[in-house]
Amino acid sequence: MAVRVAVNGYGTIGKRVADAVARQPDLTLVGIAKTRPNFEAEQAVAKGYKVYIAGDGTKDAFDAAGVPTAGRVDELIRQVDVVVDAAPDKVGKENAKLYKAAGVRSVFQGGEKSDVAEVSFSALANFDAAKGKHAVRVVSCNTTGLSRAGAVVSRRWPVTSWEATIVRRAADPAETNRGPINGILPTFQLPSHHGPDVKTVLPQLPITTTAVVVPTTLMHVHVNHVRFATPPRDGAELLAAFRGSRRFHVFGAWEGVDGTPQAMEFARDRGLNRNDLMENVLWENGLKVDGHDAWFFQAIHQESIVIPEVVDALRAMFELAPDAEHSMAITDRTLGLTKS
Amino acid sequence: MAVRVAVNGYGTIGKRVADAVARQPDLTLVGIAKTRPNFEAEQAVAKGYKVYIAGDGTKDAFDAAGVPTAGRVDELIRQVDVVVDAAPDKVGKENAKLYKAAGVRSVFQGGEKSDVAEVSFSALANFDAAKGKHAVRVVSCNTTGLSRAGAVVSRRWPVTSWEATIVRRAADPAETNRGPINGILPTFQLPSHHGPDVKTVLPQLPITTTAVVVPTTLMHVHVNHVRFATPPRDGAELLAAFRGSRRFHVFGAWEGVDGTPQAMEFARDRGLNRNDLMENVLWENGLKVDGHDAWFFQAIHQESIVIPEVVDALRAMFELAPDAEHSMAITDRTLGLTKS
Amino acid sequence: MAVRVAVNGYGTIGKRVADAVARQPDLTLVGIAKTRPNFEAEQAVAKGYKVYIAGDGTKDAFDAAGVPTAGRVDELIRQVDVVVDAAPDKVGKENAKLYKAAGVRSVFQGGEKSDVAEVSFSALANFDAAKGKHAVRVVSCNTTGLSRAGAVVSRRWPVTSWEATIVRRAADPAETNRGPINGILPTFQLPSHHGPDVKTVLPQLPITTTAVVVPTTLMHVHVNHVRFATPPRDGAELLAAFRGSRRFHVFGAWEGVDGTPQAMEFARDRGLNRNDLMENVLWENGLKVDGHDAWFFQAIHQESIVIPEVVDALRAMFELAPDAEHSMAITDRTLGLTKS
Amino acid sequence: MAVRVAVNGYGTIGKRVADAVARQPDLTLVGIAKTRPNFEAEQAVAKGYKVYIAGDGTKDAFDAAGVPTAGRVDELIRQVDVVVDAAPDKVGKENAKLYKAAGVRSVFQGGEKSDVAEVSFSALANFDAAKGKHAVRVVSCNTTGLSRAGAVVSRRWPVTSWEATIVRRAADPAETNRGPINGILPTFQLPSHHGPDVKTVLPQLPITTTAVVVPTTLMHVHVNHVRFATPPRDGAELLAAFRGSRRFHVFGAWEGVDGTPQAMEFARDRGLNRNDLMENVLWENGLKVDGHDAWFFQAIHQESIVIPEVVDALRAMFELAPDAEHSMAITDRTLGLTKS
Repeated sequence: MAVRVAVNGYGTIGKRVADAVARQPDLTLVGIAKTRPNFEAEQAVAKGYKVYIAGDGTKDAFDAAGVPTAGRVDELIRQVDVVVDAAPDKVGKENAKLYKAAGVRSVFQGGEKSDVAEVSFSALANFDAAKGKHAVRVVSCNTTGLSRAGAVVSRRWPVTSWEATIVRRAADPAETNRGPINGILPTFQLPSHHGPDVKTVLPQLPITTTAVVVPTTLMHVHVNHVRFATPPRDGAELLAAFRGSRRFHVFGAWEGVDGTPQAMEFARDRGLNRNDLMENVLWENGLKVDGHDAWFFQAIHQESIVIPEVVDALRAMFELAPDAEHSMAITDRTLGLTKS
Repeated sequence: MAVRVAVNGYGTIGKRVADAVARQPDLTLVGIAKTRPNFEAEQAVAKGYKVYIAGDGTKDAFDAAGVPTAGRVDELIRQVDVVVDAAPDKVGKENAKLYKAAGVRSVFQGGEKSDVAEVSFSALANFDAAKGKHAVRVVSCNTTGLSRAGAVVSRRWPVTSWEATIVRRAADPAETNRGPINGILPTFQLPSHHGPDVKTVLPQLPITTTAVVVPTTLMHVHVNHVRFATPPRDGAELLAAFRGSRRFHVFGAWEGVDGTPQAMEFARDRGLNRNDLMENVLWENGLKVDGHDAWFFQAIHQESIVIPEVVDALRAMFELAPDAEHSMAITDRTLGLTKS
Repeated sequence: MAVRVAVNGYGTIGKRVADAVARQPDLTLVGIAKTRPNFEAEQAVAKGYKVYIAGDGTKDAFDAAGVPTAGRVDELIRQVDVVVDAAPDKVGKENAKLYKAAGVRSVFQGGEKSDVAEVSFSALANFDAAKGKHAVRVVSCNTTGLSRAGAVVSRRWPVTSWEATIVRRAADPAETNRGPINGILPTFQLPSHHGPDVKTVLPQLPITTTAVVVPTTLMHVHVNHVRFATPPRDGAELLAAFRGSRRFHVFGAWEGVDGTPQAMEFARDRGLNRNDLMENVLWENGLKVDGHDAWFFQAIHQESIVIPEVVDALRAMFELAPDAEHSMAITDRTLGLTKS
Repeated sequence: MAVRVAVNGYGTIGKRVADAVARQPDLTLVGIAKTRPNFEAEQAVAKGYKVYIAGDGTKDAFDAAGVPTAGRVDELIRQVDVVVDAAPDKVGKENAKLYKAAGVRSVFQGGEKSDVAEVSFSALANFDAAKGKHAVRVVSCNTTGLSRAGAVVSRRWPVTSWEATIVRRAADPAETNRGPINGILPTFQLPSHHGPDVKTVLPQLPITTTAVVVPTTLMHVHVNHVRFATPPRDGAELLAAFRGSRRFHVFGAWEGVDGTPQAMEFARDRGLNRNDLMENVLWENGLKVDGHDAWFFQAIHQESIVIPEVVDALRAMFELAPDAEHSMAITDRTLGLTKS
């Protein structure tokens, strides 16, 4: 019998999780919870999702908008085995008490601190650690991107040091009230919190990170410099490791993809749900191995990269798959993430 | 028997026309022509489209990239009844000779001057004028948006004057080499060419236009001021006319859509092909009628708004539908443009 | 004896007002008030301005930063004849009580409603109306730009209707927390409040306005369409009126200024204080007269355009000049706004 | 007797060099050369500079614009001891022949390859190397910023490795035809050319660099990670080195400068010529020392950072100062770069 799932919060992440859960053969989406009746709520209804009222939302507001509701979020929680919390950063911490009281399991997002859950999670890095757990935190978009790359690389070639500069998008496409419009904002935490966050799923990776915020909405870009104890033979060998791994998309030099705008254009051409780009994006001509050093760029679609990870986390928690590869195979097939 | 269609040019417009033609019951996409083997060519192949080599492209380049080709563009042209030209602005004019020599019909884009074809076209405005024609020009994105609104409004309420200021997006999302990054550029043509261009399909509309270019990639916005001889009773009546018409999407005030970013977010949630937004976008709270005057905003998704128009133009030319309504009904159903 | 002036608030407007007042032969800058000791406070000290602590600011905070202070804002107010209020929007309304209680006169900014003062003001429009007044409101940047143009034009040629679409910059250059980064936001007030605001200084001008917000920080742009009862003979005559008027800068077509970025580049080359551009900016090739209709673009530097107006308002209130021309002559000479 | 200087090219760099040269007691600006008569040419005349016609410019064009000229560029060259070439990238290489033929010395910009001149130059790094030279290349903005920091740091504490990620502004403020508007473009050269370029002035610095381009016009930002053989005691000691050095401006944490927009706002408040920010900009709270590792951000105003370097290069070439400190003292005093 399928595991019954609720999604609490229906913004950028929540709505994608709902769509992904609804496509899984071994999961059932029971409903989603939302505070306000906007265009997103209307689309949830159009997709056939049951909408529950969250937070300080009122039935009157939904009724006035003509958006049918099925009750309040606590009623939703009582009907499920697990809640995927997709509330704004730091609200998940509060919600955790609610889930615990209701005796349901929970999945949190990377905007929460790691102590919100028993374990932090990234499928390629530590799938097994989430098996049977009651509360799991899927790490954030940037941490997921680094953890995937860290897992693929460090298991093949021992890493001496990994330095990543994270060039962060300042806002998601629909966040009209965030800036800057023209400027670069250093993240005044040196090194940045992303490195320690990667270590919640890959404790041995000797990674340090720095970050800046730039005026774009499409994707983050990571500039990676890895030093190896035993390096790959050459760039081709390193590239082959990425190309051969799930959750990576590598653009060939001939494809003419000169940055994140064209990577997203590729995603629109490919046509997955919401034109998401759930893989780490690398470039054949944006990777180099020179002796014990390697450099590579990767772009991260902040809106969608964690979605397959959330699905895998659910599968691990309820032990619906024996290992990461079996889980990811189902997730990737249902979400359209086939390797070309 | 279905009309055989070629698409010459496979950029922003061409790739969308190909997808749209492929969905029509009475049209057959024979192939597309492209000059370079980039990621878009690869996706065309993935969709099962036959790729022909256009312009100064070479078979060697496509072979080196591993993109299979079916010949050169002139071989494609010989197999079809009509070519939809989606070459860059002003190249269509040159291509017209080629089509004429080959004895095939042709559809041009609004980047060409109106004398490239026998008639300029917008489905709501002048469907019948394209019936049986051999060369038709579908007007540009901004002109299409104004023509649709002009047709819907002026047929119900006689218009004394229509003034539109067009706030133009400076580049399409994937055009990384166009600016400005920070600034506003007036279009130093007063009034702008858009007004006369609307008159190629709605000769009686007393419209004048002005334009500025702004640093965004998502959509154009038109600020319209209409003065009526006989006005609608109130805003509700005018709004109802837009809501009741094909090719318009009106956001309710409760939906919380504060501009083009959230309009495009709605499009992503809705999930049509490429997340396109092929309708004129209006806002319930962005429209007002006061006596003989009305003001309303509309947003225009420059990448996709002409796509249903191209399909209707083909249907008109080959008289595959008796009138605009019959043609648009098929187009809208196959492209997903149902009224909610 | 020079009129003693305080500036309450030291952000974008306040710091410019302080610099401008300090340059006037008939005004004395007694001090400025500021809530927080940031880099701007440090520069105020470097310029020799006495800094007073405003709002919820504390002496401890200024002391910790090493920024010397001269007391609290109420001590400043007691020493002056007039306060120029440059507090954030709507705070001026509260401050008004303070000024009244202290028996000092006051000048407010356009972010306040018109009832904050006895009269709204723009030098070219209604200098005399502020003579001897105790509380004057200098209208906002967009309103100032429209009022100047309205005054220059409507006194020469009777205007039947004036329509302006205001393409607004979304944030000032240093406001890093405001968006949108990519998108256009219609101002859902039709017509917009700017038209009625212009009428607070030019009651007879038949103006209606609309507005959109766009992702740029440099300048606003107005797209104007004026219909005349008796029109100027031609574009050259209309242009000559702007060229001959104070507070206007007209770029020749040969100068190659294609928009607001190069207008601001001109301002940097010219080198006035802070590289401000305090005039309405017009383009010779961005103006047209056709029969009874005229169209023209004007760009407005939101940060500085009201500065000379504040100086003139002070001069009017204290009757330091017999008329607008005498006041503006001093203001323009001291601020560097000479006609070339 | 003052050295006679010509500036060939009057864009972003050329016009700043002209202003700087004109302020030096031991240099005389004879004239500037420009191809087209735009607003910048007009301002050059307003400043009293003699304008000569460069490249394919014509006297007719300048005459038509009413911009007086003094001859063609070759006439200018004959009157001077040295030409500062500020032509677009790669044009300097061609101009070099002209200067050689005329027997005058020359200074080139960093857009040229290093073999254009006898030596590459950055004042803090290798002033003496330019003494008496006939052709000197001042390194580019990013290279200058890294060379300054490298010189200050590496002379105090031996460096084991220096890694810098350069987050590049995509266009200068007035370049309206460059993008991207929304996106990040990796520089597909790994490591980037900047590292080797730094070594043209600091051969021993073990630096490697990477770069991305982002949609902003204000400043570049460098994310630096330095590993020391013998490290500074702590962050305060490293910070003191920067604070104590010419050509660095360090913002205190209390100043509230959260990124490049407010750094430029500081520059506007400070009010140097064109509001330039010719120092490397660092943040007290954007620097950390941890054992043998240090991280720090620095922002680089691409338009102006090389200007004092050009002046110092001239002084070195003509041995007008005995050493870097004596030259920089004059340069900094005349340009307003005093340490607070």
